[in-house]
Amino acid sequence: MPGSRSDIDVLVSEVGPRDGLQSVARVMPTEVKNRWIAALAAAGVREIEVGSFVSPKLLPQMADTDQVVREAVKIDGLTVLALAPNLRGAERGIAAGVHKLNFPVSASREHSLSNIRMTPEQAIEQVRKACELCAGLPPDSRPSVEVGISTAFGCSIEGSVSEDWVMKMAQDLVDAGVTSVGFSDTAGCANPVQVKRMFTRLQREIGSRSGAAHFHNTRGQGLANVVAALETGVNTFDASQAGLGGCPYAPGATGNIVTEDLVFLLEAMGLRTGIDLERLIAARAILLEGLPGESLYGHLPNAGLPKGFAYASARRVR
Amino acid sequence: MPGSRSDIDVLVSEVGPRDGLQSVARVMPTEVKNRWIAALAAAGVREIEVGSFVSPKLLPQMADTDQVVREAVKIDGLTVLALAPNLRGAERGIAAGVHKLNFPVSASREHSLSNIRMTPEQAIEQVRKACELCAGLPPDSRPSVEVGISTAFGCSIEGSVSEDWVMKMAQDLVDAGVTSVGFSDTAGCANPVQVKRMFTRLQREIGSRSGAAHFHNTRGQGLANVVAALETGVNTFDASQAGLGGCPYAPGATGNIVTEDLVFLLEAMGLRTGIDLERLIAARAILLEGLPGESLYGHLPNAGLPKGFAYASARRVR
Repeated sequence: MPGSRSDIDVLVSEVGPRDGLQSVARVMPTEVKNRWIAALAAAGVREIEVGSFVSPKLLPQMADTDQVVREAVKIDGLTVLALAPNLRGAERGIAAGVHKLNFPVSASREHSLSNIRMTPEQAIEQVRKACELCAGLPPDSRPSVEVGISTAFGCSIEGSVSEDWVMKMAQDLVDAGVTSVGFSDTAGCANPVQVKRMFTRLQREIGSRSGAAHFHNTRGQGLANVVAALETGVNTFDASQAGLGGCPYAPGATGNIVTEDLVFLLEAMGLRTGIDLERLIAARAILLEGLPGESLYGHLPNAGLPKGFAYASARRVR
Repeated sequence: MPGSRSDIDVLVSEVGPRDGLQSVARVMPTEVKNRWIAALAAAGVREIEVGSFVSPKLLPQMADTDQVVREAVKIDGLTVLALAPNLRGAERGIAAGVHKLNFPVSASREHSLSNIRMTPEQAIEQVRKACELCAGLPPDSRPSVEVGISTAFGCSIEGSVSEDWVMKMAQDLVDAGVTSVGFSDTAGCANPVQVKRMFTRLQREIGSRSGAAHFHNTRGQGLANVVAALETGVNTFDASQAGLGGCPYAPGATGNIVTEDLVFLLEAMGLRTGIDLERLIAARAILLEGLPGESLYGHLPNAGLPKGFAYASARRVR
């Protein structure tokens, strides 16, 4: 798998081409997706979730995921991630040469049933089978398996979710063979105290298998939660260019945290992401070309870099 | 002065009626200002910056500040703050019965000259005279004097600002008699590492005189900076309802951090603000009545409270 992390401090995993595009009713043409992904990678993005191996009947936006993966894996140094909702999806991902597979597993029983029509236990069982499938492959074509537990911080249907239950699920996923388990704030209800407590506990319980933080900005708390997660040692964050996707509310109430604003936060804090903000912002034009008129979010692209801004890597040159 | 803080953990100081309204070209009618301030106080806001004793020729939006102060000081338990750009403004504030005076002092020489036509040293000298004026008053009509040093984290004209210089200014302001000195991120370029470092140093250098944090959300980093400041022990934050004011960019790029989102952050973190979010959000209607068609920002008002949300004070009941 590509993606050396020796020259960065934090991995920003771009989820726009999957999590973003699947929330938009229109379909971005495959050729534009490929150019967008290439532009993100050229800006220094090291990992991109490029699509979902879901049925095209359910999500026509993701129907070209096989092709998009085949193109993306040609990009030098890019880790290509895709979502697989089931074993059939995992097989498609493996055939396309994906580097990492990501499975939907939700802590909230109600959310799990409504989202994937499986109980959390059934979802974990499916992940176990996918891990077994991957384990049987030769090392150079074996994707790693990642899970970000959805609704880990609370659910819009169930309300609060038991932290003990979330931790048990994380352990069960590790036992099933998952490479890394993180937490997703699907409903946008996490707060920094909770984030710190839960990631600290996750790291204590599953050690090096503890994974990424996936925060939504539904209530404007996304980057505040990033600061809290950083303090526990989380070093991988999902984000979406222009906050694409999951925007059920009025302007400003985005779903995913905005990649541009996240990268600015990290670099300003002295944490190297490897990403060039100007080139990242330039990639928005391709996104807009594929989805004309789509609302793009993010503060940094409007405000620009502060006068005298220095990237973390520049400040490290001694 | 009113404003016992024994039942709250963090003081949210609402600056919309001053910092917000002075950035909007239209003038909010005095009667609406009074109702808006009353509604904010009724929602539990304990401190409000209600206006500026600047020349009405410069800022016609603030021409009624004397009347607004006289009305606001009648509200039980509310601390009424106003900005005074000079000694004449301080005299007007004292005559109107303001509880706290706030003076514009900027760390950036260029910003200071362009904003108030004074050098930082001249601005501090003026604050010294105002403190002397206040010290000569009987205790029950003596306002306290606060300063949030503008451009403390960087300047859009000068770029980076020397932290040693900012700390020297803070000490000089304390020596001049100021009750509390805080830092303002006027240009929206602060980051959490810098915030932590500078407030830690401020507290070490001026102890109990160290004051409020005033963050802008220009680059989307406002609440991330709040989290960092909280960790150093800062317990007073300025914010503006609906992010009113200072919005030079596209939608979402507000000036001040949004009071509604800040209160949600604090309460979700278990920190009591004394503010009821539903009543706070309801006060937006009055703001809009006074400024029809004005853009209102904030994520929480769109998304609403998460299912099962409990206020910090409710969670403290044992």
